[in-house]
Amino acid sequence: MKIASFKAAGTASYGIVTDAGVIDAGKRLRAHPTLKALLTSGSLDQLKKLLDERPDHALRDVELLPTVPDPDKIFCIGVNYATHLAESGHPTPPHPMIFTRFANSQVGAGQPMIRPLESERFDYEGEMAVIIGKAGRRIPREAALGHVAGYACYNDGSIRDWQRHTSQFAPGKNFVGTGGFGPWMVTTDELTDISQQHIATRLNGVEVQAAPISDLVFDVATLIAYCSTFTELVPGDVIVTGTTGGVGAYRTPPLWMKEGDVVEVEISGIGVLRNPVKDETAASATRAA
Amino acid sequence: MKIASFKAAGTASYGIVTDAGVIDAGKRLRAHPTLKALLTSGSLDQLKKLLDERPDHALRDVELLPTVPDPDKIFCIGVNYATHLAESGHPTPPHPMIFTRFANSQVGAGQPMIRPLESERFDYEGEMAVIIGKAGRRIPREAALGHVAGYACYNDGSIRDWQRHTSQFAPGKNFVGTGGFGPWMVTTDELTDISQQHIATRLNGVEVQAAPISDLVFDVATLIAYCSTFTELVPGDVIVTGTTGGVGAYRTPPLWMKEGDVVEVEISGIGVLRNPVKDETAASATRAA
Repeated sequence: MKIASFKAAGTASYGIVTDAGVIDAGKRLRAHPTLKALLTSGSLDQLKKLLDERPDHALRDVELLPTVPDPDKIFCIGVNYATHLAESGHPTPPHPMIFTRFANSQVGAGQPMIRPLESERFDYEGEMAVIIGKAGRRIPREAALGHVAGYACYNDGSIRDWQRHTSQFAPGKNFVGTGGFGPWMVTTDELTDISQQHIATRLNGVEVQAAPISDLVFDVATLIAYCSTFTELVPGDVIVTGTTGGVGAYRTPPLWMKEGDVVEVEISGIGVLRNPVKDETAASATRAA
Repeated sequence: MKIASFKAAGTASYGIVTDAGVIDAGKRLRAHPTLKALLTSGSLDQLKKLLDERPDHALRDVELLPTVPDPDKIFCIGVNYATHLAESGHPTPPHPMIFTRFANSQVGAGQPMIRPLESERFDYEGEMAVIIGKAGRRIPREAALGHVAGYACYNDGSIRDWQRHTSQFAPGKNFVGTGGFGPWMVTTDELTDISQQHIATRLNGVEVQAAPISDLVFDVATLIAYCSTFTELVPGDVIVTGTTGGVGAYRTPPLWMKEGDVVEVEISGIGVLRNPVKDETAASATRAA
């Protein structure tokens, strides 16, 4: 199943994306008004019963939101592909490199990714996101994939100069509206081995990153085992698994995203996360404040 | 006012701590069941009307919780005192160094701080925490203190080997139960100039850290201006402003916290955050899972 969070006629909801349209689960399952609430109650299977229902919305009529708009935790993994390690000059870390995003830095597919007033150095990072479906602490690697609800595309958009203000990445990874997440999550019954899939990023139609998911230095099971060692993973948590070589910052000259650009992250078996890029202006910043 | 979050007879609430006892605000202000909800509604002043009420609980009868148990964001500031810069060998950063904690890493005053199974290197970091009372993005430095609801003590307990697994600190700063926050927040009407206060950390009664708050490299207003540049601050957000020299990791031999220790962070004008230290055992880890 493809499961998306969206807004329809001004109301936030979530549901199943089918070829015929979107079946609104939020309005049918009142006890579980959000995807996180559904996952938290362990009721993902309830969606299967809705598959025969008549779709409520055409896909083009909904505004897609971040697949999980309100995760309790978002873990991002740094330098987790050999090609990105090589271009960045980082040595291979002995452990997964973990930094975090706040939920308000995310946007859904189709929503603009925002280049802020403070910087021109807005870079893409196409990544595969893991959505946790089952809580756990100190999850053994062998049991880890049983805690996954599904997978989605993520664009870990980065403000490079702010990322490098100090050794810690948080400021450059948390500007409002810089992280694309979607267009939906595909459940694990349809993606039994995510390592067999392929990821690519395109800027204005030109491929700028591409790799098989099997190139991950630390695979999904290892990341779940590691993160759950120090914290409890809960349903709706997101692990953004790292980007491959080809980011804009390491090109000569550097390639930054700007007003009018369209950036896409595609993962086979999932779909395309497509976002227009908008430059924040003094006027739009004032309206947002 | 001193405002604490607590559990009384199994129910989570918050209220005013007075010499005569605790006035339960959560049960009186049903529209605002948590301190974050009260702050979000801009209703902090409503508490003043409760000051003449008869206290509901003796302070010793409540279990103090983290002052804000459920913040949307927790910003931690690295190397923000000259003495800690000197002992750590870090150069003075040109910008505030920001990393984050998740809410589930926090405990209240009196609750045990947990040394996890995975490490013996459990270090204290006595800090002053700022609790945001008013939302804002790109808050000018001159207006920043108007966004503060109050101040509290924080012990940014750190698992040093996990903090240094890679360049990014998150794993060592997010073990469950390692961050003390409390015992309560003191509102800004009683702490009009936090820089006039003094912070000290004691381990088993021995002072191990001490500094005037005026020693902060980046002061409270600067931190609010910086963080609100990349993200929107919302009520209940917490900025943990950094620790002073004297942490255990840089002592010879190193000084780690362990089972049976008692660690205290005291800030003049606020009070004492006191936590016992517990070693997690295989049995306690299994019970918690």
